[in-house]
Amino acid sequence: MAITGVMRAGAVQIRVTEMGPALRHYKDILGLLQTAEGSDGRVYLKAWDEHDHHSVVLREAESPGMDHMGFKVSDNAALDDFERRLEDSGVTVTRIPEGQDEATGERLQFVVPTGHTIELYAEMEQVGNGMSLDNPEVWPDDLKGMKPTRFDHCLLYGDDLDGTVRLLTEVLGFHIAEQIVTPDRQTMIGAFLTAATKPHDVAFIRSPEKDRFHHASFFIESWHDIQVCADLIAKHRVPLDIGPTRHGITRGGTIYFFDPSGNRNETFCGGYIFYPDRPALTWTEDDIGRAIFYYDRKLNENFLSVTT
Amino acid sequence: MAITGVMRAGAVQIRVTEMGPALRHYKDILGLLQTAEGSDGRVYLKAWDEHDHHSVVLREAESPGMDHMGFKVSDNAALDDFERRLEDSGVTVTRIPEGQDEATGERLQFVVPTGHTIELYAEMEQVGNGMSLDNPEVWPDDLKGMKPTRFDHCLLYGDDLDGTVRLLTEVLGFHIAEQIVTPDRQTMIGAFLTAATKPHDVAFIRSPEKDRFHHASFFIESWHDIQVCADLIAKHRVPLDIGPTRHGITRGGTIYFFDPSGNRNETFCGGYIFYPDRPALTWTEDDIGRAIFYYDRKLNENFLSVTT
Amino acid sequence: MAITGVMRAGAVQIRVTEMGPALRHYKDILGLLQTAEGSDGRVYLKAWDEHDHHSVVLREAESPGMDHMGFKVSDNAALDDFERRLEDSGVTVTRIPEGQDEATGERLQFVVPTGHTIELYAEMEQVGNGMSLDNPEVWPDDLKGMKPTRFDHCLLYGDDLDGTVRLLTEVLGFHIAEQIVTPDRQTMIGAFLTAATKPHDVAFIRSPEKDRFHHASFFIESWHDIQVCADLIAKHRVPLDIGPTRHGITRGGTIYFFDPSGNRNETFCGGYIFYPDRPALTWTEDDIGRAIFYYDRKLNENFLSVTT
Amino acid sequence: MAITGVMRAGAVQIRVTEMGPALRHYKDILGLLQTAEGSDGRVYLKAWDEHDHHSVVLREAESPGMDHMGFKVSDNAALDDFERRLEDSGVTVTRIPEGQDEATGERLQFVVPTGHTIELYAEMEQVGNGMSLDNPEVWPDDLKGMKPTRFDHCLLYGDDLDGTVRLLTEVLGFHIAEQIVTPDRQTMIGAFLTAATKPHDVAFIRSPEKDRFHHASFFIESWHDIQVCADLIAKHRVPLDIGPTRHGITRGGTIYFFDPSGNRNETFCGGYIFYPDRPALTWTEDDIGRAIFYYDRKLNENFLSVTT
Repeated sequence: MAITGVMRAGAVQIRVTEMGPALRHYKDILGLLQTAEGSDGRVYLKAWDEHDHHSVVLREAESPGMDHMGFKVSDNAALDDFERRLEDSGVTVTRIPEGQDEATGERLQFVVPTGHTIELYAEMEQVGNGMSLDNPEVWPDDLKGMKPTRFDHCLLYGDDLDGTVRLLTEVLGFHIAEQIVTPDRQTMIGAFLTAATKPHDVAFIRSPEKDRFHHASFFIESWHDIQVCADLIAKHRVPLDIGPTRHGITRGGTIYFFDPSGNRNETFCGGYIFYPDRPALTWTEDDIGRAIFYYDRKLNENFLSVTT
Repeated sequence: MAITGVMRAGAVQIRVTEMGPALRHYKDILGLLQTAEGSDGRVYLKAWDEHDHHSVVLREAESPGMDHMGFKVSDNAALDDFERRLEDSGVTVTRIPEGQDEATGERLQFVVPTGHTIELYAEMEQVGNGMSLDNPEVWPDDLKGMKPTRFDHCLLYGDDLDGTVRLLTEVLGFHIAEQIVTPDRQTMIGAFLTAATKPHDVAFIRSPEKDRFHHASFFIESWHDIQVCADLIAKHRVPLDIGPTRHGITRGGTIYFFDPSGNRNETFCGGYIFYPDRPALTWTEDDIGRAIFYYDRKLNENFLSVTT
Repeated sequence: MAITGVMRAGAVQIRVTEMGPALRHYKDILGLLQTAEGSDGRVYLKAWDEHDHHSVVLREAESPGMDHMGFKVSDNAALDDFERRLEDSGVTVTRIPEGQDEATGERLQFVVPTGHTIELYAEMEQVGNGMSLDNPEVWPDDLKGMKPTRFDHCLLYGDDLDGTVRLLTEVLGFHIAEQIVTPDRQTMIGAFLTAATKPHDVAFIRSPEKDRFHHASFFIESWHDIQVCADLIAKHRVPLDIGPTRHGITRGGTIYFFDPSGNRNETFCGGYIFYPDRPALTWTEDDIGRAIFYYDRKLNENFLSVTT
Repeated sequence: MAITGVMRAGAVQIRVTEMGPALRHYKDILGLLQTAEGSDGRVYLKAWDEHDHHSVVLREAESPGMDHMGFKVSDNAALDDFERRLEDSGVTVTRIPEGQDEATGERLQFVVPTGHTIELYAEMEQVGNGMSLDNPEVWPDDLKGMKPTRFDHCLLYGDDLDGTVRLLTEVLGFHIAEQIVTPDRQTMIGAFLTAATKPHDVAFIRSPEKDRFHHASFFIESWHDIQVCADLIAKHRVPLDIGPTRHGITRGGTIYFFDPSGNRNETFCGGYIFYPDRPALTWTEDDIGRAIFYYDRKLNENFLSVTT
């Protein structure tokens, strides 16, 4: 088997301060599809081309932010293997039984040095992408809004960047696709980490406070669709952060906006295909503007300061 | 490490009947970059976003066609492992020493049951994608023609489809992303096989004769670029096979055309991301028109009959 | 006033053999908006960015085809002026009183030498484009299907091409933007005529029979949208004629398909802006393939033979 | 003839502080084609799909800005007619003889109430669009940079907006396609004026100082090309003003940037087709953010303050 261990960013649980407006945002504007509502009020959503039951879970809470981010691994043997390797490296792992999340098998849960709660799981019920497995069409009917094809990645802010990057690369098998370093190259400021071939499945930026959530990103098919996203953002008076623009890092087209609770979302297109033999790219902090927003060549004031 | 074993379709050696017109086609119109000319007259080319030394080798010969297709594996340990597994499964493997191809390490060479010569290699000199590894731009200057980012896959025709598919899946770790079967589902007619996350790295169609070459495909970034390809094909009077159109299989945008020797090329965009847990799709032969050319919903007369 | 006389192709009345399937086609798939149903059963439709009450009228009849095509002129003075000029040139003009068509003022009706019934009108009730005239959005909500912005032009086949072209240019003020001629340049085979700045508002091809209808065309915003049209055509099993492709004439992106009665439709994007000082382009019949289908560089078998 | 009087924005003369860097910008990055250099050092440029000899004239001077903007009229009779009408309305008109500008016939020159020098001309030598008038291709070879198809419009700032708008609409036959007014609708703040069917050929914003130049705009074919423009701006470190974004006014896609002398340029795509019966759109000043930058929904600090 060519892809083993962690396959991809599979799920994110996001706190929203009011479920009603959040659902209008995530379903009608972003265009995710609701697959379940738990007895505890959590709502499960997926992007249309995902076969798994869900990739986004919304939980109503007093403050916005990310509860945890989940990565799907290749099978239960990989899950067992990661449990051992995490514990061997000194990480406390909680094994959550099957069924605590809708349609989800056992999960390993642990906290990385930047303070974020990460989960690994191997099994989730598959509900399909709305099309037959026999002689399908190319997209299903009745899609709404921005029509992302998948949950793509998260960007997270936290203090012990070195520790988290070491854990993800040495224990969990991630690769650094790109990094931001201080001009003297002594200190890593940001790391863009991939589990397989996407330019990133998760990224981390060094920042004083633990466990901060910068954004969850959803993949769309083209730069044309970035314009459609921007049109929808404007038509629906969704708070825009920045975009349409392009990242130097990943080369992806992007637009950032906020859900009604203040969590940042991204829709993202393009980017290259990563393989383990592709050399990592390094950006120096003096060029961080181009790294993050290739067109503006400077950060906007929100980028470093607004997280949830 | 998350991706092990075969990583991707890495190289293809194509026979051309006259090198001059072939180079004008592959360099000026398709837009590959020449990286070397061997002392034996073979010419080495790459697509711009590939870091490896080459992905296409042209060899002047009396008749067109494909000499062999190469897959890059994760490391030399994987190469050794594949050698054992291939031999255990009864395949005769030739180990070609480093340096027989420019900039290339040791290669395993063997013939699959459909008659095609396949190579595996772990090492190739990296020449980069024309941009710095530090603070790069998003594309290099002075690109020409169709500007493909990578060699993507080949489609090959041959007789013992079952044997080749068994070898690639059971010994080499490929996955079937999509397949075409007879209406009674008893016989596989086509298989689209992926090494990692592309919808296919190589595909095979059952056909009476061994070792036939249908096309080599090059990835471009968008449907917009398919139009640019079509414009260039028309402006330069390149023989068009079919397109712009879309495949049902892979969902990719496509245009097929011929090099001056009669080898079919494709430029291809889009398609989904494959993971090992994504269910395989099955097309029945009665719907093969939609499978291959989703818009026309019928094969053109060339598709089954013209190979090299 | 800078644009006077004929402003544009404004309306076309098409015969359909069954209204139900026709409405599903024109409303749900093509994406026109119904604005009225007449007491005589005719149904009035418009494209979303047209302000006038309608641009397409469907009439149930025993055989498909075009009843008449209407051009909107700048004002009633122009209408009176055209009546005089048509009569002076020997054309019999019928003045149809206001209200015979829904929401439409007086019309002049006459038959051109190729046998087609043409109408001129200066007044039609405006119903708007679904957005406010104050502080509007960039597109209205709830659009369906291919979302054309406007009815763009018709292509008509008939015998006395010279007579019709003379009438349209000398009496009605059209310009020839492009023409197809025999290789000896003695005979015009096709004429693409513009009233203002579009590459064509109406085109005629010489053909033995009078009053044949080749297609009605609807404008969409981009080549990206041509792919969406093609997807919808395939998903809904609409009979495809040809495309996605590009015309040499007009340079427009195009896809041709058939309504359930067998009338050909086109969606069309791009093309240049025409001004009266832009030189007319001439295509010779030996290059008619590139003129009509720039990518295939040959006519498909339907182009000359299938009309309604 | 359907289009009479003023046909279009045809030419603009821009002052640059150093010709060398200006030419690198306008030719290599923007992608205009040089057609002549005058004996007085002025350089004449055109966009590729314009048939006239030039649309941009660069003049080296001590300070940047616009010398004058020229509109092409339908013929010399129209020129004579406009001369009479301008003089009747109290405007002083200078008739500049043929040949003072390269390849250009007689011109009428006059100053409008906002202080800008406007020219009208009927004749300019045609040099073609780089393709044959017989059996042409769809675009010429060897285009560079952003590849605009035409000079599209200018936005000008000045004090007596009412006077200029009155002159352009009442004497020169322009239409107001869109306007910005104070919330009480008593005062016009901006006017977007069209000569024929573009959403604007010239626009004016009320501002205290006379004769200020906001930008010259060049038309590109699609939103995809806006991204290419943005890539080129970033790669060549061209000062970016804002974009990629979209205007509410005209609905056009846009990016603003500066030439080396500080003159603002725009590349622009999309927009609707205007006809004289299309209702004018009105934006109120409290919504001016959406009017100008539909996505950001607020002006950037440059928009009102930076002109040349």
